[in-house]
Amino acid sequence: MTDTVDFPPTRKTRVKRLPKRGHYDRATVHAILDAGVLAHVGYVIGGEPYVTPTSFWRHEDRVYWHGSSASRMLKTIEGGSPVCFTVSHFDGFVMARSGFYHSINYRAVMAFGLARKITGDEEKLKVLEDFSERLFPGRWAGLRPVNSQELKATTVLAMDLKECSAKVRTGPPVDDEEDYALPIWAGVLPVRMVTGEPIDDERNLPGVERPTNLNPRIW
Amino acid sequence: MTDTVDFPPTRKTRVKRLPKRGHYDRATVHAILDAGVLAHVGYVIGGEPYVTPTSFWRHEDRVYWHGSSASRMLKTIEGGSPVCFTVSHFDGFVMARSGFYHSINYRAVMAFGLARKITGDEEKLKVLEDFSERLFPGRWAGLRPVNSQELKATTVLAMDLKECSAKVRTGPPVDDEEDYALPIWAGVLPVRMVTGEPIDDERNLPGVERPTNLNPRIW
Repeated sequence: MTDTVDFPPTRKTRVKRLPKRGHYDRATVHAILDAGVLAHVGYVIGGEPYVTPTSFWRHEDRVYWHGSSASRMLKTIEGGSPVCFTVSHFDGFVMARSGFYHSINYRAVMAFGLARKITGDEEKLKVLEDFSERLFPGRWAGLRPVNSQELKATTVLAMDLKECSAKVRTGPPVDDEEDYALPIWAGVLPVRMVTGEPIDDERNLPGVERPTNLNPRIW
Repeated sequence: MTDTVDFPPTRKTRVKRLPKRGHYDRATVHAILDAGVLAHVGYVIGGEPYVTPTSFWRHEDRVYWHGSSASRMLKTIEGGSPVCFTVSHFDGFVMARSGFYHSINYRAVMAFGLARKITGDEEKLKVLEDFSERLFPGRWAGLRPVNSQELKATTVLAMDLKECSAKVRTGPPVDDEEDYALPIWAGVLPVRMVTGEPIDDERNLPGVERPTNLNPRIW
């Protein structure tokens, strides 16, 4: 994390209440996005908010997400609803000497903008391949290829990272000075995501071996 | 998961595209909420969506969240913005024989409504204690008590679970029938959250022992 400002803060993205938790540099924003699989996408229908979790990926200063062309979320955003695209990681319980200073450690990015639909088949296939390769390098080439009907049934949206910021809390609890004299245990209970042992599909053909690089080392 | 309908689906909460993933029973909704620490709260300012991650807790058919009384999110919602309250768990990568059928396993709840601010000090303290006790039973009583200034600086919101639904995907990939004949490895790579080894605060007093029940077994 640096103090570089690659994404100039706006009324919407400036972290006001605890400014030292705010970051506006590309390296921090990218690292938080790249450690994530799920985004929470906010959009508006009839003046009311909707928040839909969805898988996503990043390439350069752009985030992508996709789904069925029939999806309410995708159709609404394709139709011009502004978006708030939030990715967050829960990193730990921060346990202080008073209830008031209990907190959580986290990393989050909020990005605002309008998304565009990717219309060209070639570009759509390319970014879907990027998504797969980011998680499981080498897998895409060995899959049954996407056909034109599937491609048509899939909407891919892209949104440029322009109006965005990161917010991060790390480290130990911060108590009132006089509370450090109390005999109360304080500390951090770290939390992280892990992958478990792969589960082979029951219908895998005999002799088909499980890939050895199945761990998406993204977090 | 049952087919019981405790929360009658509405235009906003009915799972339309893949109806078998939708659940409207209290047991499923509660279980997904109770396995979560972070919610993603959607609200609207000037017609535009905002999605803020925040810790939360549930009691009966109500979710609660809190923060600084100066928080933009809390002030906006307290002021009457409708809310979309989403809690999601990412449970695994579903790896199929074609790119199209790759998916993720997940559990999510979306709840819509208006939130109310808890104004009485006694009720506020009670629900904050509930929050703490849900995660770390027995800890609250040993903490330096919350004082009136801290209580005043904390806003707690509550929202009834009325218009809500759960959406769940579990199990192996589902491929096109003819693709099962292909020699491609398919399966599920499970993902879960875990707690690590606690980190003692450097300023803990000598002789203060780490509690033995520090694992919040909620997921």
